[in-house]
Amino acid sequence: MNVDGKQYRTIWLADDGWAVEIIDQTKLPHMFDIRRLESMECAADAIKHMLVRGAPLIGATAAYGIALATRFNPEDSNLHKAYDLLIKARPTAINLRWALLEMLEVLIPLPVEHRIEAAYKHAKVICDQDAENCRLIGNNGSHLIEKIFQLNEKKEPVNILTHCNAGWLAAVDWGTALAPIYIAHDRGIDIHVWIDETRPRNQGASLTAWELNNHGVPCTLIVDNAGGHLMQHGMVDLCITGSDRTTINGDVCNKIGTYLKALAADDCDVPFYVALPESTIDWKVEDGLADIPIEQRDGEEVLKVFGIDDAGILNHVRIAPENCRAANFAFDVTPSHLITGLITERGLCDASKSGLLELYPERN
Amino acid sequence: MNVDGKQYRTIWLADDGWAVEIIDQTKLPHMFDIRRLESMECAADAIKHMLVRGAPLIGATAAYGIALATRFNPEDSNLHKAYDLLIKARPTAINLRWALLEMLEVLIPLPVEHRIEAAYKHAKVICDQDAENCRLIGNNGSHLIEKIFQLNEKKEPVNILTHCNAGWLAAVDWGTALAPIYIAHDRGIDIHVWIDETRPRNQGASLTAWELNNHGVPCTLIVDNAGGHLMQHGMVDLCITGSDRTTINGDVCNKIGTYLKALAADDCDVPFYVALPESTIDWKVEDGLADIPIEQRDGEEVLKVFGIDDAGILNHVRIAPENCRAANFAFDVTPSHLITGLITERGLCDASKSGLLELYPERN
Repeated sequence: MNVDGKQYRTIWLADDGWAVEIIDQTKLPHMFDIRRLESMECAADAIKHMLVRGAPLIGATAAYGIALATRFNPEDSNLHKAYDLLIKARPTAINLRWALLEMLEVLIPLPVEHRIEAAYKHAKVICDQDAENCRLIGNNGSHLIEKIFQLNEKKEPVNILTHCNAGWLAAVDWGTALAPIYIAHDRGIDIHVWIDETRPRNQGASLTAWELNNHGVPCTLIVDNAGGHLMQHGMVDLCITGSDRTTINGDVCNKIGTYLKALAADDCDVPFYVALPESTIDWKVEDGLADIPIEQRDGEEVLKVFGIDDAGILNHVRIAPENCRAANFAFDVTPSHLITGLITERGLCDASKSGLLELYPERN
Repeated sequence: MNVDGKQYRTIWLADDGWAVEIIDQTKLPHMFDIRRLESMECAADAIKHMLVRGAPLIGATAAYGIALATRFNPEDSNLHKAYDLLIKARPTAINLRWALLEMLEVLIPLPVEHRIEAAYKHAKVICDQDAENCRLIGNNGSHLIEKIFQLNEKKEPVNILTHCNAGWLAAVDWGTALAPIYIAHDRGIDIHVWIDETRPRNQGASLTAWELNNHGVPCTLIVDNAGGHLMQHGMVDLCITGSDRTTINGDVCNKIGTYLKALAADDCDVPFYVALPESTIDWKVEDGLADIPIEQRDGEEVLKVFGIDDAGILNHVRIAPENCRAANFAFDVTPSHLITGLITERGLCDASKSGLLELYPERN
């Protein structure tokens, strides 16, 4: 996507042809800072400390983490070491495991001397595939928005609520939940987005707001508490979120708080869609509530808020008393019965086993 | 309640016998700062800028606002002027209107020369009555907590989730939602409280966490997004919130986000109670969603977060891009069918017209 007139992806090969560059998302929207990753350890740290985040981008970064590992030592032992290191960086998003397994499946059968080239090549394939899948998700989802716009006799903007950031910053390009918004907006459909700030890390306030404002999509930031009220009063036509892991039954594990918005959408008859590429589907898990590990992060993320102060300095402020205890669950699970439908690169489907298997019959 | 070994209420007459003193709640938990109110304008400002907040305390401050007005000029015209000024300070909490009307009802029939004394006397009556009502709410609600504790065979702590601050800082003393917690805790029942931080103004993180930590009640701060996940996993036994306005049908208007927690409680079979004194009941309104005005505050409260930085300086940080638009709805309405029961000074009742009229038959 476009940043100040220049086309970017969230991850790319550096000019030297071996290091990997990313946008440091912990600094946005206050600074646009590019970071260079030179080792698998760097890649794991970037995932763990959320310089990169979002299920698809975590997968892409892990793929390049394997490529960086091959450059150091392409033997089996080091590839397995890289797998072990990277898989632990974050526990919930399934794309991490998916990308790592795909890389090893490609590399392990190859002679050691061919692995470096193949690793970089396949990491790029994963990235290109992700960007293309997101574009397809965008296209498929844009028809939903178009339909709502056409049914609206007053031709008022379509009000879409989104939680967290599932925009191009969360993927390699385009994004998942925001891709339909970009594409429909570019086609001239009036859209207004309500952005949940998404505490504790405020990915909505910092990343989604930055993306949408950059792209010129009208949007309004709200606190995470506000969406229910908006839906009660007919101020939301559609919710779209991303997914960090989708079960075969259509349960969706996504950023903490997604479940609350899905409940409100259900209560207020607002359609609730989840946009995801196949790589976020965990075909082995049925019951999201029982079987998806929920990452618990440092309570400091709850106790302190990061931003830019009036003096223009990046700063943290503590909002609670000293020595206050905090808990920090990063994701929750939205049961499939609260989800109107899934938007995938292959089209829309019910959030159910039969819906998913209709789109992905080869998984049957 | 107790602050560093000294007994406080949230509002009291200054030693000089005419000015009114309050705790500046915008500075908590970082500073304990006492402010002096010397005029009705001061009182209105303190309400508007949330130096005092919480439905019962807004009412008490308005009552003293009238007393301060009489001291300047006790004639009818000035009392009506005071009413007009104070009623506009915040639109949603009904206690403001209730306290103002009660003061005028007492004062207007009196000869002008008796009004100053009567005003101060009646403002104190309102305060004492509020403290006593909150104590009764606490007592009535504590039995609920006790029952849950007794039914729990492992005698694990009763996990209570609360939203915003409905503690003693929100009232004159004791509080509404927190009063049952204080009383049950003081009786030796093991309690653990999940505190919603309550964006945008973080009254949970700043005020409820401060209160509970001061009182020694075990508690954990969470983001507003987390409560649904906790309820899905059996980590909440009971929700208790306060109310800024309760309709005759039992709908509850409370801090934005309350509705989302009530939806989750309903979905997860967690009892959801609302604690309130009669003064928050608007006997004239039936349908909360249609007929309660929802205050909209400055978007800056969403865009910037207030706290203390690592250098110990009170500071704001902006979390969103420059020029980002924000909306800030301060309250939402929880329909009565999501509420297990109301806890009042007269006992518990269904969140319904018949439930309320059984407790308050004189309103029939």
